[in-house]
Amino acid sequence: MGRVTVRRRTQRVTLDSAGEPQGRSRPDTIVVEEPLELRIGSTALTVTMRTPGHDIEWLHGFLHSEGIITAARDVLTARYCAGAVMDDGTGVEVNTYNVIEVQLAPHVADPVADGRTRSFFTSSACGVCGKASIEDLDVRASYDVAGDSVRVQAGTLLALPDRLREAQSTFERTGGLHAAGLFTAEGEPVVVREDVGRHNAVDKVIGWAIQKDLLPLRGHVLQVSGRLSFELTQKAYLAGVPVLSAVSAPSSLALDTAEHAGVTLAGFVRGQSLNLYTHPERVLVASS
Amino acid sequence: MGRVTVRRRTQRVTLDSAGEPQGRSRPDTIVVEEPLELRIGSTALTVTMRTPGHDIEWLHGFLHSEGIITAARDVLTARYCAGAVMDDGTGVEVNTYNVIEVQLAPHVADPVADGRTRSFFTSSACGVCGKASIEDLDVRASYDVAGDSVRVQAGTLLALPDRLREAQSTFERTGGLHAAGLFTAEGEPVVVREDVGRHNAVDKVIGWAIQKDLLPLRGHVLQVSGRLSFELTQKAYLAGVPVLSAVSAPSSLALDTAEHAGVTLAGFVRGQSLNLYTHPERVLVASS
Repeated sequence: MGRVTVRRRTQRVTLDSAGEPQGRSRPDTIVVEEPLELRIGSTALTVTMRTPGHDIEWLHGFLHSEGIITAARDVLTARYCAGAVMDDGTGVEVNTYNVIEVQLAPHVADPVADGRTRSFFTSSACGVCGKASIEDLDVRASYDVAGDSVRVQAGTLLALPDRLREAQSTFERTGGLHAAGLFTAEGEPVVVREDVGRHNAVDKVIGWAIQKDLLPLRGHVLQVSGRLSFELTQKAYLAGVPVLSAVSAPSSLALDTAEHAGVTLAGFVRGQSLNLYTHPERVLVASS
Repeated sequence: MGRVTVRRRTQRVTLDSAGEPQGRSRPDTIVVEEPLELRIGSTALTVTMRTPGHDIEWLHGFLHSEGIITAARDVLTARYCAGAVMDDGTGVEVNTYNVIEVQLAPHVADPVADGRTRSFFTSSACGVCGKASIEDLDVRASYDVAGDSVRVQAGTLLALPDRLREAQSTFERTGGLHAAGLFTAEGEPVVVREDVGRHNAVDKVIGWAIQKDLLPLRGHVLQVSGRLSFELTQKAYLAGVPVLSAVSAPSSLALDTAEHAGVTLAGFVRGQSLNLYTHPERVLVASS
């Protein structure tokens, strides 16, 4: 796509040996953030701010997380379309590669019919609204994640953040991208995706797997670069991922969701140590 | 509120001197994430995942960023209401403190009337959909941010991340909270708010200022703990903030928005150095 990063002139300010700030102009690499409008037929369903690239994977992952599709066959076509009106007064529509139109298969319930779009937007922001809804996760998941008997060596988990960074070429240049990587239980990378939004990186990974008909992701580990929110935990669970691992802290609702869903949650996975928050039995360690 | 953090039993895994993983169970402090449903009258407008606390500030900031209110007088009342049905089969509604009902003043256009709710949800996720919309920011902003003649010492900016962390008590315990802090041009803290979502932390700060009738935030600096997205930049701009500073990287759309809006954008503000991406003239340095 060629639009993952752009170069911009930046003023770098550094304190000199006397503690005086010195400014120097230089070009800097910046991660691209652009809106992507997702249409079902001709109706706008949602807009996400994302880093361009792997957009088709993203929409498969997003539509899956929202419960609209369950497999690749549910999407008949997905294509970029003219979506922005030229601002030169001609009124001509151009293709910005920021608008995608999806045709769902006839057997898929239309999410924009009968005013359901509105409640969809609500669930897009949240998906769970109180204790009753957390328990509803049992109903929503198609896969028996709790029954996944995979075992992972603690040392394998500890190595994943470095493996994710190795695969994450853009981060080195910009420091601005989140990453999500799918790994085997032995720590072999399956697919790694980057995005300015952490939920988009996860949607791209899961969407990749959906397009390859790999769901449920039984026996796999999903490693993410940042913190663990409810939203990421729910996305992993709905895709059948048994082990979710993050470099930073999880939230209380991420823990509650993982506990209830049977997902092993690891956090602060850094160097020589990690924390196991839920279902630690899948990670092999000596216990004292 | 007493719900900003919770204690949970965690298994801490550490490699011993022989490189063998050792597990030890211990209590850990976890940042709370809970859904908050915002209703206008009795109609649900949006749901956000947030850390409880300063919810009334949050809704003022959120409604301002969405262009629904411009000042504190636009909100007549805001109160927690019963919003969750007990799951014990009695059907009784309880107050979870996760549902807030707002009554807007009669002079405020009703955002849920006439099907406008749907487009509202779209703009909640995005707010800009292509180049034309970025230029629309000129129209939307009520304040002359570009004309703000404030000057800030580079050394003052460099000190803000530490000042933010000093004020951010919960982060030390959980590592899981974003912070946003409003500072004077001399680096004095005005207000600091934390949240599991960075956009919520900024909405709480701006909502605090709205409730005190302090907008526009002329001459102030908004310091945030993480990365700079389009969304945060737009929120700061709409509140009249001339200088936005972050510990991490900005996105391309954050830069474009700040450049166009007349906002000074500083990033990678760490220790002895920082980057100025837009309108560097407000930050005083020696230039070479």
